[in-house]
Amino acid sequence: MQIKTITIIGSGNVAFHLGQRFVEKGVDVEAVCSRNKNHAETLAKTLGTTGISNYSKIPRTSDMYIIAVSDDAIADVVQELGSYLAKDALVYHTSGSVSSEAVRSFFTKGGVFYPLQTFSKSRSTDFDKLPICLHTEDTASKDRLEALARSICPNVHWVDDQQRASLHVAAVFVNNFTNHLYHIGHQLCEKEQVSFDLLRPLIEETALKIQKHPPREMQTGPARRGDEQTIQKHLDYLKDDSTLTALYRLLSQSIITTNED
Amino acid sequence: MQIKTITIIGSGNVAFHLGQRFVEKGVDVEAVCSRNKNHAETLAKTLGTTGISNYSKIPRTSDMYIIAVSDDAIADVVQELGSYLAKDALVYHTSGSVSSEAVRSFFTKGGVFYPLQTFSKSRSTDFDKLPICLHTEDTASKDRLEALARSICPNVHWVDDQQRASLHVAAVFVNNFTNHLYHIGHQLCEKEQVSFDLLRPLIEETALKIQKHPPREMQTGPARRGDEQTIQKHLDYLKDDSTLTALYRLLSQSIITTNED
Repeated sequence: MQIKTITIIGSGNVAFHLGQRFVEKGVDVEAVCSRNKNHAETLAKTLGTTGISNYSKIPRTSDMYIIAVSDDAIADVVQELGSYLAKDALVYHTSGSVSSEAVRSFFTKGGVFYPLQTFSKSRSTDFDKLPICLHTEDTASKDRLEALARSICPNVHWVDDQQRASLHVAAVFVNNFTNHLYHIGHQLCEKEQVSFDLLRPLIEETALKIQKHPPREMQTGPARRGDEQTIQKHLDYLKDDSTLTALYRLLSQSIITTNED
Repeated sequence: MQIKTITIIGSGNVAFHLGQRFVEKGVDVEAVCSRNKNHAETLAKTLGTTGISNYSKIPRTSDMYIIAVSDDAIADVVQELGSYLAKDALVYHTSGSVSSEAVRSFFTKGGVFYPLQTFSKSRSTDFDKLPICLHTEDTASKDRLEALARSICPNVHWVDDQQRASLHVAAVFVNNFTNHLYHIGHQLCEKEQVSFDLLRPLIEETALKIQKHPPREMQTGPARRGDEQTIQKHLDYLKDDSTLTALYRLLSQSIITTNED
């Protein structure tokens, strides 16, 4: 029994990009449900479907329900859906950090449908590249779920709660923290009135280099070389900024330790 | 008076990629000079030129000499070249972190020819994208130098010593430290037996997102949202690793502070 009809709960970036992709690939998005009426209707219009802001009007017979709301709203949404949907409805959340328990406490066949990517309204999302991480404890629906995921993305993985928790921490390091290092680079450029454009090709190449290699093999720089003189020069340069000094020290030390392993 | 002939001192990644590019663009590389005879000859062969391991045999009449050796070897190389070349020879180094003084102390018309990129022997270098940062205090040779740089790269900038010092620190943050964050992501995946491939599309997208936007506007994640609950969950996950805990705290705090500015 293929999953043919979906209701999306939420109207943010994940709801937007997932919804678009489902529609593109011929999956029927029956409704978009969001407490904010405007948001629900705007996204519904984009997807050519119905916008619902009153949960009591949610379609009862969708093959699947995908909750794409902020992490801290998931529990409330699940509870509210519990009033209207059958206990065995396929209800999934899309979060990297929330346990599948949050859904399964109400919906026994529920699980996680987590597209691991950073979404922005202003950029299109490449579903041919990103991984979708699936989890359910209902073995009977696994094949259907995987078929649905594969219909929008070739890169589908079964990832349990513990693995997803670790992936989410890792994603914070490689995405959020990395972006903050870019911001620090931007600030250092601004201070000396150099264009950040000078660093952009380096940033791109750094990310492309590890697409085929383990990052450890691609490590370069003064800490990797054990070049104390350059490290000291950089620390002198940063001496008026205690945060940057602490970060420089800690990251350099961590590279040196990795190197010794 | 156009710069038509170059001698390269050094045989590492920068010498290799710069040399190749010069040859491709029709600049005559008269010789490659390296203390290691094998290295000199191997690179010379690749470039279709002469390999020299004895500095006394260096061509005396090249229009320009480019020193592409490790930072801590530059001073010695300059001193040695001082025995054979005229004081007004155009001698340039390619380092991001060494002052132009290191060259100018011997060669009054010397300066810096710094391609800001991470070079690997195993990857080709896109000279149409990377910036070349130039510096000289000899105004008479500026036009010639810029013309040479533009003949191999459309992205040429005049960057003084102080600006280059700041760029180099910034490059350590956006390249070396970022790569180390990738390595941390890799470790976290390995620990739970999840493939690092799941993070690679995220890493690429993170770098591509800031190609057109300031990184600050692209910042996402629990620290950006002030989501204390998720931060605490991540710190619990990392609690057995004091380095990762310290890094997580410091980077999150720095994002929060940036956000408040």
